Amino acid sequence: MAAEGESLQKRSLRKKASLTLTYHVCVPPVRERRGRGGTESSLTPGEEMNGSGNLMDFLDEPFPDVGTYEDFHTIDWLREKSRDTDRHRKITSKSKESIWEFVKSLLDAWSGWVVMLLIGLLSGTLAGVIDLAVDWMTDLKEGVCLSAFWYSHEQCCWTSNETTFDNRDKCPQWQTWSELMTGHTQGAGGYLLNYFLYIVWALFFSFLAVSLVRVFAPYACGSGIPEIKTILSGFIIRGYLGKWTLLIKTVTLVLAVSSGLSLGKEGPLVHVACCCGNLFCSLFSKYSKNEGKRREVLSAAAAAGVSVAFGAPIGGVLFSLEEVSYYFPLKTLWRSFFAALVAAFTLRSINPFGNSRLVLFYVEYHTPWYMAELVPFILLGVFGGLWGTLFIRGNIAWCRRRKTTQLGKYPVLEVIVVTGITAILAFPNPYTRRSTSELISELFNDCGALESSQLCDYVNDPNMTRPLDDIPDRPAGPGVYTALWQLALALIFKIIITIFTFGMKIPSGLFIPSMAVGAIAGRIVGIAVEQMAYHHHDWIIFKNWCRPGADCVTPGLYAMVGAAACLGGVTRMTVSLVVIMFELTGGLEYIVPLMAAAVTSKWVADAFGKEGIYEAHIQLNGYPFLDVKDEFTHRTLATDVMRPRRGEPPLAVLTQDSTTVEDVEALIKETDYNGFPVVVSRESERLIGFVQRRDLILAIKNARQKQDGVVSNSVVYFTEDAPQLPASNPQPLKLRRILNLSPFTVTDHTPMETVVDIFRKLGLRQCLVTRSGRLLGIITKKDVLRHMAQMMNQDPESIMFN
Amino acid sequence: MAAEGESLQKRSLRKKASLTLTYHVCVPPVRERRGRGGTESSLTPGEEMNGSGNLMDFLDEPFPDVGTYEDFHTIDWLREKSRDTDRHRKITSKSKESIWEFVKSLLDAWSGWVVMLLIGLLSGTLAGVIDLAVDWMTDLKEGVCLSAFWYSHEQCCWTSNETTFDNRDKCPQWQTWSELMTGHTQGAGGYLLNYFLYIVWALFFSFLAVSLVRVFAPYACGSGIPEIKTILSGFIIRGYLGKWTLLIKTVTLVLAVSSGLSLGKEGPLVHVACCCGNLFCSLFSKYSKNEGKRREVLSAAAAAGVSVAFGAPIGGVLFSLEEVSYYFPLKTLWRSFFAALVAAFTLRSINPFGNSRLVLFYVEYHTPWYMAELVPFILLGVFGGLWGTLFIRGNIAWCRRRKTTQLGKYPVLEVIVVTGITAILAFPNPYTRRSTSELISELFNDCGALESSQLCDYVNDPNMTRPLDDIPDRPAGPGVYTALWQLALALIFKIIITIFTFGMKIPSGLFIPSMAVGAIAGRIVGIAVEQMAYHHHDWIIFKNWCRPGADCVTPGLYAMVGAAACLGGVTRMTVSLVVIMFELTGGLEYIVPLMAAAVTSKWVADAFGKEGIYEAHIQLNGYPFLDVKDEFTHRTLATDVMRPRRGEPPLAVLTQDSTTVEDVEALIKETDYNGFPVVVSRESERLIGFVQRRDLILAIKNARQKQDGVVSNSVVYFTEDAPQLPASNPQPLKLRRILNLSPFTVTDHTPMETVVDIFRKLGLRQCLVTRSGRLLGIITKKDVLRHMAQMMNQDPESIMFN
Repeated sequence: MAAEGESLQKRSLRKKASLTLTYHVCVPPVRERRGRGGTESSLTPGEEMNGSGNLMDFLDEPFPDVGTYEDFHTIDWLREKSRDTDRHRKITSKSKESIWEFVKSLLDAWSGWVVMLLIGLLSGTLAGVIDLAVDWMTDLKEGVCLSAFWYSHEQCCWTSNETTFDNRDKCPQWQTWSELMTGHTQGAGGYLLNYFLYIVWALFFSFLAVSLVRVFAPYACGSGIPEIKTILSGFIIRGYLGKWTLLIKTVTLVLAVSSGLSLGKEGPLVHVACCCGNLFCSLFSKYSKNEGKRREVLSAAAAAGVSVAFGAPIGGVLFSLEEVSYYFPLKTLWRSFFAALVAAFTLRSINPFGNSRLVLFYVEYHTPWYMAELVPFILLGVFGGLWGTLFIRGNIAWCRRRKTTQLGKYPVLEVIVVTGITAILAFPNPYTRRSTSELISELFNDCGALESSQLCDYVNDPNMTRPLDDIPDRPAGPGVYTALWQLALALIFKIIITIFTFGMKIPSGLFIPSMAVGAIAGRIVGIAVEQMAYHHHDWIIFKNWCRPGADCVTPGLYAMVGAAACLGGVTRMTVSLVVIMFELTGGLEYIVPLMAAAVTSKWVADAFGKEGIYEAHIQLNGYPFLDVKDEFTHRTLATDVMRPRRGEPPLAVLTQDSTTVEDVEALIKETDYNGFPVVVSRESERLIGFVQRRDLILAIKNARQKQDGVVSNSVVYFTEDAPQLPASNPQPLKLRRILNLSPFTVTDHTPMETVVDIFRKLGLRQCLVTRSGRLLGIITKKDVLRHMAQMMNQDPESIMFN
Repeated sequence: MAAEGESLQKRSLRKKASLTLTYHVCVPPVRERRGRGGTESSLTPGEEMNGSGNLMDFLDEPFPDVGTYEDFHTIDWLREKSRDTDRHRKITSKSKESIWEFVKSLLDAWSGWVVMLLIGLLSGTLAGVIDLAVDWMTDLKEGVCLSAFWYSHEQCCWTSNETTFDNRDKCPQWQTWSELMTGHTQGAGGYLLNYFLYIVWALFFSFLAVSLVRVFAPYACGSGIPEIKTILSGFIIRGYLGKWTLLIKTVTLVLAVSSGLSLGKEGPLVHVACCCGNLFCSLFSKYSKNEGKRREVLSAAAAAGVSVAFGAPIGGVLFSLEEVSYYFPLKTLWRSFFAALVAAFTLRSINPFGNSRLVLFYVEYHTPWYMAELVPFILLGVFGGLWGTLFIRGNIAWCRRRKTTQLGKYPVLEVIVVTGITAILAFPNPYTRRSTSELISELFNDCGALESSQLCDYVNDPNMTRPLDDIPDRPAGPGVYTALWQLALALIFKIIITIFTFGMKIPSGLFIPSMAVGAIAGRIVGIAVEQMAYHHHDWIIFKNWCRPGADCVTPGLYAMVGAAACLGGVTRMTVSLVVIMFELTGGLEYIVPLMAAAVTSKWVADAFGKEGIYEAHIQLNGYPFLDVKDEFTHRTLATDVMRPRRGEPPLAVLTQDSTTVEDVEALIKETDYNGFPVVVSRESERLIGFVQRRDLILAIKNARQKQDGVVSNSVVYFTEDAPQLPASNPQPLKLRRILNLSPFTVTDHTPMETVVDIFRKLGLRQCLVTRSGRLLGIITKKDVLRHMAQMMNQDPESIMFN
């Protein structure tokens, strides 16, 4: 808007170039994108526009596309809301006319619930299918079921009659590859063959995944949560939530998880659910034609995604509220809850885990915790915070390197190499060979009397007569010590490999790897405390709560606390984290340890940097995201931020009755601003309204085509009535209908914190600055973001154009 | 602000008069209030004001009280936020100066958590004390424990050695009044004596309660939630959350509940917790001196209140978010959760119910529900919606009658009469004689094999060999039929008496009575379905899921669903309701029935009127509350709402350099506006800023006292520099420092829905209206509320002055 001449033009060009680079990691350059993922246009042409400004003059036949947005632009929340109210008003008034219209209005009112139901059903089904497929394909790396090749290891032995309870994992139907090929179960040869085939399968899966992403849906990579946050805050990325993305992300997610890479399916499931949401939005014009309403649906879909990821509907809603959503009215809360519940119950009726449990990691502990245990819990919190910091810094540094060096040019090779390294290192260690969720599940579990795993190899007292679910602390057997070593190695491996895995060009979530790191650390600490308590009853700290023969320490609980701490350190979730964990255990009993760890980890991590991993990635990619959580506390005023700056050419404005079509076209050509203020005259600088660049271009094009007599030196009128001109003069062009008569203004003395607040809460695109009624300048969302970045000593150039 | 002459003045006087009336029911007239409950001034004088407008000119010695609010006025959220940021900036910059300042800044950062901890501890303790006292005093109406008079019936027999399991309720230590006085256990005489003493005790308790409220803390009456909602939305009611209110409300709550009236303690507990919050705010200047920050604490306190009321911390947080709070940043979410947890655990460690359960009504069901049961659940939802409508309409009509007729003048008599009627009718029926929470608890419970109550008097199959927690459906015995009759009578009684009880001048919550109504209805329906299923296995609807000998129907679940439906119909809670119920049962299993009932009840109730009971009471009392949930969908523009209207005298404005002190004083005297716009000159009408009436009065008073040469015809300058005047002229008065240089403006064409949105989201007090840079008028929050009421065909005069 402010004509800033050469320098700004150049800068904006530079920015466009850097955008291409920006998207190199996970998203292809703009041209390529339009071709593939961008097949779904999120806005249909022919939409009537009744923006906030021109309520009073309706046209019978508005020209198409007015009021829509271009790709990579920010939406105007107030305008969207206003349009929806208009639509609603129209339906309400029509509904009194006939029964058919009344039924239509009822359908319209119910469409929100229908969309929620559909989202719940589809995302629950997809999650179930993904779970089943991952189960099968993960086991395929090790062997195959002879009775039915589509059975996973567990299902195979379950359906077999020859399975005993003690050896649940062994049955003749399930054969490892070496057994099948050579007939031997034991021996170095068989091991090496299995090792080799494990690596081959892993490479095959990951190659397939990365190729599918590259060829069909470049947007399907990554966790998707940073982009969804940005979209929900009001940014348009066409095709990011399209049908292709949905299909490819679902398929490649299965492949990526099955390949054994250190990644999870939780983040991508949120993306998948949001794609479902977007898909069903297109069924109802109420949502497909209004970017604001569409985002309400997407918020609810994100809740459904987390709900199926963990089987935690309330946690999902809170996650959407706390972490993902931007604009979250109470109506959305209720609907999100509904969608999350439907999704959770759909998943349960598919029953992929075969235990009719809703939650991913169902645990039940039998002993309470003691006050003294808060010390190790808080230490786990500190560990979680440190891990969060390490992970975010390491991952961001690596992703930046990927963006700026040659590395980014070989995404397929990168995936292959990382998969290869992961598979080679993971196979020898039983705790990394299996899928990460199984590992977490085992670490969370308490050692019952019937548990046969290595981790539960305690030395039993032969005289024990206690009930099975109340086993006293026992000394660790050799298996536990072996397990401890293997877990320690697994911990180091996971920590390092996860940093390099997250951000590659395949679907990858980080909930599960983060939780795994925490669970391993927690279990190690838990066993250590347990053994200390067993061997040193007389120490003053144990004396009070741990008598000999009592079951005082539950190592599984430590694993859970550690997982919460690490997840909290990485994502900086708070309430939703605790609620998800609470839903996993189902008892308020353990909420205090979880909370202590979550609070500590957040404080420790915040001390090193306020950003969670999602915010860090948003910033790395330069998305125009105005975080609700950042507090702007600097003492600048609107006048310091607005364009034009001191020494820059004056603001590019239109006058209400003295600009010609030619002038307007020249202005459009010379500048690339999104809109122009309209003033009474250049002298008085009294503001009349604001007109969008896109609407202006469309209106002039339309008029030149259809309206006779509109030529280059026709005068453009933004006034209510154009004067009657002599016939010799060219026909005037009346454009009041595209003029927003209620542009947002602040005075030049308004503190920037207030301006930032207004931008956030009202979702503005731009705001005009006045002093005693005179138009002085303009502040766009981009200016606000750039200023905030400047104030925080960040690179202001990294923000994408809006 | 707009000089509207006589008519408005008169109207505002009338409004003040109606306020006195308005408050007659539950709140005394203004004068009286100042004396008693209003001993706590929520704002300390001497507060520095750095409003959003005058960041650039700081004074070393601002005069006291600038920037504070008067009683019954609306706060300016943006200004409060801005002031807090200033404070924070100052502390941050100081913290680098010395270690002591650094420690102080750390303390400041931690004070929020300390306040939360204290709120949790105190409100948990108070809730525990209230529970214990209510238990004892409720039983005192029937008898006394001889071994220790301070024991309740249950505690008495618990500590006795002579209690058997079958006769848990009978022990020699516990004697009814007739036993104690006459020695007889049976007979009409004893019964009548017990009856009489029951009534006497009830009357005594309620008389004590109403007298204490009348004399010491008039604000302690009612549930308090409507007022707290209003306060949280940014209204000042001095003393409403004061120490006296806290003390008296706690004591009278015990008395009111013990008297056997049909009321609950949940709403008042929220009020009590908010009083605790306000109390602890005064410890930290960060909260005591900033009305915005204070409200963040109060939001969290409300969550703690619900948390202890039900033992449901997550539900409490969601209740605060959904129902009570207005401005709820994410930081508050986390802190609320902390406060709610601390409160819940404090309550549990006091253990008032003697079962170390956190929740009020702990239930565990053993059988799943079936799809066909959704039909009765939805019918219960319909019942809940109808009850909600009936209750709201009936109660509001009665409260309005109380306000407008003689009835309101005899609050003590009213309480006595209602208590008398309640006691007389309640005693003969065992289901109304006991406390309502006990009743609900019994209705929720499933009939185990050991249950001895009348409701569980089923005909047992003597050959039954099934485990105790899996009892098949059985035919009802005579006890069940008696119970059904008594429950039906209790239902009618509760429905009628609750309408008259809520709103009397004693603390009264409506959660428990609403739940009781629903639980009774639900249990009746549940038993009916159960017996139908038992006697008609072959009916097509039962055939699929209810074979003979199976345990298919759980009447307790019906009671719970009914309770949720009725509570939802009255309060229109949604997510928080389901989550509270979910926390009570602790299993996701029953969330679908609960949700079906809650959704149905909300839809049915909404069809008859959108308002919940709290909103209805807010409107009845005329509080200036701008509901976030109401959608404003009318097509009016700012120009239709602003003052002055067509034909009214022009807006009362000040000019920046031509008004004298005398003029200003005259303007202040003539009008009662809260502030005045300042313009360049009356001709140009270009807006410079806005000055608050209160600040103006204080500044002139201050200047006249302390500044030499300021006389009546001194010119008031709002410009940056006052001109150098000849010595003969009177000294000018420079008032730029109290001028808000960034008043909020909208254009006259702005649709009212946008204006309403801005008022809501930014928490404005007023907004100036301009057209092409000229000041046209002003819209205050009062104008917005009045306009909204007009548009909804309500009485616009009922809104209190802001």
